[in-house]
Parts: sequence; structure tokens; C-alpha cells
Amino acid sequence: MPRHALFIEQPNIVDGRLTVEGEEARHALRVKRMGAGDEIEILDGQGGRLVGRILDAGRTLTIEISAQERVPQLTPRLEVWAATPKGPRLDRMVDALCQVGAAAWIPTRFQHSVVDPRATKIERVERLVAEACKQSRRPWRMEIGRRADASDALTAGGDNVQVVVADGSGDPYTPCGRAVIRLLIGPEGGLSSSELNQATTAGARICRFGSHTMRTEVAAPVAAAIILARETPELP
Amino acid sequence: MPRHALFIEQPNIVDGRLTVEGEEARHALRVKRMGAGDEIEILDGQGGRLVGRILDAGRTLTIEISAQERVPQLTPRLEVWAATPKGPRLDRMVDALCQVGAAAWIPTRFQHSVVDPRATKIERVERLVAEACKQSRRPWRMEIGRRADASDALTAGGDNVQVVVADGSGDPYTPCGRAVIRLLIGPEGGLSSSELNQATTAGARICRFGSHTMRTEVAAPVAAAIILARETPELP
Repeated sequence: MPRHALFIEQPNIVDGRLTVEGEEARHALRVKRMGAGDEIEILDGQGGRLVGRILDAGRTLTIEISAQERVPQLTPRLEVWAATPKGPRLDRMVDALCQVGAAAWIPTRFQHSVVDPRATKIERVERLVAEACKQSRRPWRMEIGRRADASDALTAGGDNVQVVVADGSGDPYTPCGRAVIRLLIGPEGGLSSSELNQATTAGARICRFGSHTMRTEVAAPVAAAIILARETPELP
Repeated sequence: MPRHALFIEQPNIVDGRLTVEGEEARHALRVKRMGAGDEIEILDGQGGRLVGRILDAGRTLTIEISAQERVPQLTPRLEVWAATPKGPRLDRMVDALCQVGAAAWIPTRFQHSVVDPRATKIERVERLVAEACKQSRRPWRMEIGRRADASDALTAGGDNVQVVVADGSGDPYTPCGRAVIRLLIGPEGGLSSSELNQATTAGARICRFGSHTMRTEVAAPVAAAIILARETPELP
């Protein structure tokens, strides 16, 4: 794996070369200390992955591209419908969800929710996602969905969708083999009993993902990671 | 489950009642707004769990104890031998490890390690552990081990111990059924190839716990949670 990675949304390759300017170039040169001769990968957040070598590193970065591939999205598609934790705990959750491979975070309102993210907060989250994708070498950018209610998770979808609700009252998670998994993670205080009943009636599975009470920002990435690990076919 | 929890290391019960004073009482009354009549559980960090009801809540808290039990430790015993992340990322790791149920964190030195925790830092971590145990209603306090080298994890132990090294080159984790699992999580830059070779020679399993590169503070709790989930017998 190349030592360095860049995250560039629409890389413009001319004659097999890519030129990087502005903030991204300054950061690469001054903070990451990239230099001529270094191997580098460029991710576009939409599954595109370029590999190349830095030719020139002055004010701009000139990269000679040697390989280009499209990486498929992770399967199953894991949508995390989680409550919005307060302050820095939101950043921590979004960062970890990117690293474990969730396809999307949908900021979700539950009966016990207290925080409703404002538009400015969502903008900040988008910047954080870009940083986390670069850090974790993630070829597909994690999507930030539109605000939704917990009940919306139960209605949309079809045979390919399994809704899973994280709650201490449930059983350990076992694989379901569906193409789309929609994971519901409640706020502090959890889901109300009427929300749990509604979910069960709609065919959701109630699952627990550990022995202790977890906060939203830990429960979300931990449950996501366990689901992805369980749905990955094991080697014989 | 009672709405409130306290974490008191050696609760002194006299005539079926427990009196709580000082900082713990102030916090319970002012921040957590506990009051007379509230149900409460008291955890001692050594598996002891008391359940009671608040009789009086003036300057001190008087609790009438109605039940007392000993909760066994989680099995398998999961020791996390992880590098020490920098700054707030250390707090984040320790907090999440408590929540997912790791038995211990051993601050471990790897070839690529850059941070060596000082004694003052370890004290701060112990306070954080107490807070996280209370928050997650964890009956057993997570142990903070003495500083060790990665190679120490490979030598001590016996037939009951399985060493697992988190590395992107490995296979997905499958259950091993051992009583003690020792999980090695390297620093930024991962384990060196000589460390990986040494581990494999000593009988360790190299496993990956996700599709993307994870930072130490996310990799440690995520891998711990996946191991505990996989080692928990599934319902028929």
C-alpha cells in the first residue's frame, strides 16, 4: 500500500498526470511531508482509486498515474440510522462510522431525542467525513442522509432490507444475508417501548451488541462493525 | 434497570443502609438530580452490585439496600494490548474499551510506537475508567496494566491463552473458544514485519476486523467487540 493518500473528488488527469494545487497540495507538502519519488494513492470518494508517483513537489504536486481502478462498494450496504449525540461526541461517532465501513449515517429523531442537528453542524460533519475517508483509505465516501424519523426506517425498503434495532433486550446478532441492513441506534435513554413494539411489528430484529450499556457514539460503530463482520462470508 | 447508578469501591452497609457523602453525593444530587424515592444501583467495580432506594437526599444520600448480588466476569477474559494513542484519542480509546467489555488495557510498546504514557497520564486514565464503568453500568472495573512490550504478550500464558494480532493482512476473526484472549493493536504505522513474523511463530493469529484502515483508538474497541460477539455462544 502506498505510504500517502489524497482525497480528490474529481481528479483531472491530463496526459497521465495529475496536478494538485491549493490547500490540498500545501497540506500534503508541509504536514504530510510528501516529496518527489513518493508513491501515492488518490481516492475520489466514488470508488475511483488512482495509484501514482510524485514527480515534482514545489508549490504544486505533479503525480504520474500508473494505475487506475474502480473499487466496488462494501456489501451489505449498512445504513446507520442513529440519534445525533451532543458536541464532540457527534464528531467521534461520524469518524468511527467512516472507519468501520458504514455506507451512510442518517441523523434520526427518536422519542427520547434531545438534539436536532442544524445545517451548520451537517456542513462540519461533511468536512469530517472527507478527512476520515482519507485517513482510513476509504474509496467510497460515507453518505450523510437527510434528517429522518425512526419510523421512516421501518416503512421504506423491500425484501432486500433488514431493519436491526440495537437494544439491550435483544439477542446477539446473527447473519441475515440481506443486501441492505438498516441499523437503528437510539439516543441516551434508548428507544421507548412503543418504538420497540412498532419496530418488532414491522419485522425489525432487536439485537444487542455487548454486555454493557454503550453510548450512542460507541454503540453505532461497534454494532456496525459486528454486523459487517458477521455478514462477511468466512473462509472455509 | 434502576434509573441511576453509583460507583463506590467499598460500600459500607450498616443495618441495610448505605450512606454516601462528599463529592459522589454532591454529583448525584446536583448533576444527576437524584432524589428521595429514586431506585438506584451501586457497583463496586469488583462484581458486587447493590440495588436500593434513596430514603433521604439532603447533604448526604441515604440508600436502603434491597438486593445484593455478585456478577461474574465476562468470558472470555479479553486483554487489550494496545499502543498508547496521543492526547484525547487515548481517553476515547479507554472509554470505548470499558463500554465494550474489555477486561484490561495494557499500554504496549511496539517498534513503531511514539508515545510512552507517563505516570500522571495513567492516573487520569484510572479516573476515566471509573467514570466509564459507572456510565456503562459495568460491574467489573477495567484493569489498567503495567507498561509492557509487544513481545511480552507472546511469552506469558499457556494453553488457555490465544494471542490475536489485528492487522489488515489477516483473515476475518473466527471463534477460538479460549478462556483468555490477548488482542494486540499496534500504533499508527501498524506492526513491523518482524513483529508480525515473531507473533506468527509464537502461535498468534493475525486477523483483520474491517475493510478500511482504523486508527488505534477505533480499532481497539471495534476488534474487542467483534471478538466478544464471536465468542458468545449463539442461541439455537
